[in-house]
Amino acid sequence: MKKAGALVLGGVFLAPAALWASAASGEGAEIPRFLFVLATMLLAGKFSGEFFERIGQPAVLGELLAGVLLGGSVLGIIPVASGDQLSEVIALMAEIGVLVLLFEIGLQTDLKQMFKVGPAAASVALVGVTVPFVLGFAFWLTPMVPPELNIASPTTTAIFIGAALTATSVGITARVLTDLAKMSSIEARLIIGAAVIDDVVGLVLLGLVSTLVAGAAVAFVDVGVAFAVAVGFLVAAIAIGFRVAPKMFGLIDRMRVRGVLLVSAFSFVLLVAALADKAGSAMIIGAFAAGIILSRTNQFSTIESQIRPVSDIFTPIFFLSIGAQFDVSVLNPFNAMNHEILRIGSILFLIAIVGKLAAGWAVPWKTFNRPAVGFGMVPRGEVGLIFANIGLVSGVLTPALFSALVLMVIGTTFMAPPLLKASFSLWDGKNNEGHAGPD
Amino acid sequence: MKKAGALVLGGVFLAPAALWASAASGEGAEIPRFLFVLATMLLAGKFSGEFFERIGQPAVLGELLAGVLLGGSVLGIIPVASGDQLSEVIALMAEIGVLVLLFEIGLQTDLKQMFKVGPAAASVALVGVTVPFVLGFAFWLTPMVPPELNIASPTTTAIFIGAALTATSVGITARVLTDLAKMSSIEARLIIGAAVIDDVVGLVLLGLVSTLVAGAAVAFVDVGVAFAVAVGFLVAAIAIGFRVAPKMFGLIDRMRVRGVLLVSAFSFVLLVAALADKAGSAMIIGAFAAGIILSRTNQFSTIESQIRPVSDIFTPIFFLSIGAQFDVSVLNPFNAMNHEILRIGSILFLIAIVGKLAAGWAVPWKTFNRPAVGFGMVPRGEVGLIFANIGLVSGVLTPALFSALVLMVIGTTFMAPPLLKASFSLWDGKNNEGHAGPD
Repeated sequence: MKKAGALVLGGVFLAPAALWASAASGEGAEIPRFLFVLATMLLAGKFSGEFFERIGQPAVLGELLAGVLLGGSVLGIIPVASGDQLSEVIALMAEIGVLVLLFEIGLQTDLKQMFKVGPAAASVALVGVTVPFVLGFAFWLTPMVPPELNIASPTTTAIFIGAALTATSVGITARVLTDLAKMSSIEARLIIGAAVIDDVVGLVLLGLVSTLVAGAAVAFVDVGVAFAVAVGFLVAAIAIGFRVAPKMFGLIDRMRVRGVLLVSAFSFVLLVAALADKAGSAMIIGAFAAGIILSRTNQFSTIESQIRPVSDIFTPIFFLSIGAQFDVSVLNPFNAMNHEILRIGSILFLIAIVGKLAAGWAVPWKTFNRPAVGFGMVPRGEVGLIFANIGLVSGVLTPALFSALVLMVIGTTFMAPPLLKASFSLWDGKNNEGHAGPD
Repeated sequence: MKKAGALVLGGVFLAPAALWASAASGEGAEIPRFLFVLATMLLAGKFSGEFFERIGQPAVLGELLAGVLLGGSVLGIIPVASGDQLSEVIALMAEIGVLVLLFEIGLQTDLKQMFKVGPAAASVALVGVTVPFVLGFAFWLTPMVPPELNIASPTTTAIFIGAALTATSVGITARVLTDLAKMSSIEARLIIGAAVIDDVVGLVLLGLVSTLVAGAAVAFVDVGVAFAVAVGFLVAAIAIGFRVAPKMFGLIDRMRVRGVLLVSAFSFVLLVAALADKAGSAMIIGAFAAGIILSRTNQFSTIESQIRPVSDIFTPIFFLSIGAQFDVSVLNPFNAMNHEILRIGSILFLIAIVGKLAAGWAVPWKTFNRPAVGFGMVPRGEVGLIFANIGLVSGVLTPALFSALVLMVIGTTFMAPPLLKASFSLWDGKNNEGHAGPD
């Protein structure tokens, strides 16, 4: 060590100085910042989610609003600029997050159960998809919409707006019903059945609109082709998956290396998603199909419990990223330019509520709490956000219009739980009076 | 929809064409490729790990070799070029992987137990660190080493080589001892105790060498400062953490939002790691400290079981990334330039074995299977790779010298399990004869 001492006579770098020097140079400084950004996102999302759950709102709203707060238009902690290398990393991790989320929804989707609920749920789903779509599409082509909001063709934008209005968030709805201890009611079965069908239809629609955003407009032939490809991929993947996956995962289950089942399931999700993209469908349809496929394996419950922690880490990144892209300045009422956006957002919000409420009257041959079923279909949640995000990224939606859509999604997701709760209280009140007779 | 049809007369984008167009443009094409690369890495790592476990070798070797196979010098699937955006994403996810790994090791480290094992384990650790370091350092300053291998100052490189030789992989050693059903033997307690101390010393050494790579050489003052900062951060973080963390995680545990405990623990690891970097210590020391701190909380076992799946996804990315940077062409014996590297690698490998074997004779006042204890300290595993990787990234090691070090790490990790097994068989044979008396 004497030699070491001799070598440095004269020019010596003090260790702390060396540290700061290395921290200032590219790569070295990027890693701690990445760790800080990621940890801040996750913690803010969870604590905000906790607050929203405690005030009776879904936690996902908290994650969204934490994203808005940390995002470019407020604190600027989450990198959204395309020049920032970290924004690419966050975007790819968010993509994994949404894929894992849809994989989980797929895992919980029972195809048989879905077919059993039969025409009633299908009818609710059909009305709940058609009415908001038609209302949104028609509204967009009226003179009420200023032409400068169309950066793609008006028809493409109208299809996008209509499609974004069709979504139902089965996750949020199921959680609200569980909270109200209504999970075994006839209304709950109708809502969940319809929401699941709606999810599939919404995902197919999403695959469809994703392929429609490249050009200026769409032809009926293209719509047909895209729909056939999207549905075809889902059907083919599930059909093949049901035959192959149980054997494949049976073999994997016999392997003994740590975590092999989870890693295989996770990789399976990523591969089916990439394959869906290559086949002309949407990546999230692939992830959803992967979930439905693996729900048939004997290793289902292990996979479900082990993917949870992975989802807990990745999924919030998606919701926070979405929130971060929401430009709060559109809410400023003193800016005249915002009035139009707030007006459009409010109309979309009303269409979103009315369109889904109509679904409660879709099954005239049965007696049940119609408003509850309608309100149960209202929350757009993550699926609506996915639509809005694809619209923004693909250049169909202006940032302002994106914000109006996110307002609609946040509004419906906010309003659904109290509306649902109120409609059940009213109905139960009437019902109990009837049962109890004159007191 | 009539209007839509009318708008597209003439110029029509067929949906598949539109898809391929969108897939070809930047961002859109990057995501599926990322999913494909990630899934391929994870699956190759697990299946290769399974194969190695079945032939009686640690799974980590399989992940390393899968990385070599998928890496730049063979199949080129894992992006390592700095121009490739995905290489940044993979590198950051690998960084999370190594942090989570060291967090897990920290979680499993019992400070009290470590102090209890007492002077014997400390003595084994001391000899096991000093002898390889001195041998490696001294060897590097002999004329046997060609001067062109020093791109930093010879002393800095010598310190790096010496430090890389000190590591002991407590994970690999513990797994081998479990496989041999020797976990409760006196030798196992000595090995594990010493390996844990060795881990801490190794991590401090790593923090030290990490801060020494910026300049051309080091002064004794700097060594002292860096050592004080590295140890100081570890001590301060643990001291403060032990006071604050149990209360903090007790409060978090009362929260009800999904995954809040895991997400908080994960974020805690990232924050302490970033803090360690800012304080002038190494990020992995921070992650290790976070593990030791959280091992004292009441939520310890929940955190440990929930971090496992997260670790299962992230940690292999680290090992595969390391493997991917290994240039197999240095193994080509027909290239005269490689002879030197193979020669250096072999000498380092011999130093690595002899230096650790000496640790078996570090406790002359006790009787036990000395070769077993020595061989138990031999595997360099992940800690050795972290050293090699930091050396490469910081520009102290040439790619060829990096490969020689990785060869040493792979060699020791390969050789330790059979050597350990053989030494126990021999000892047990002798022991049983002694007990059974003349037959």
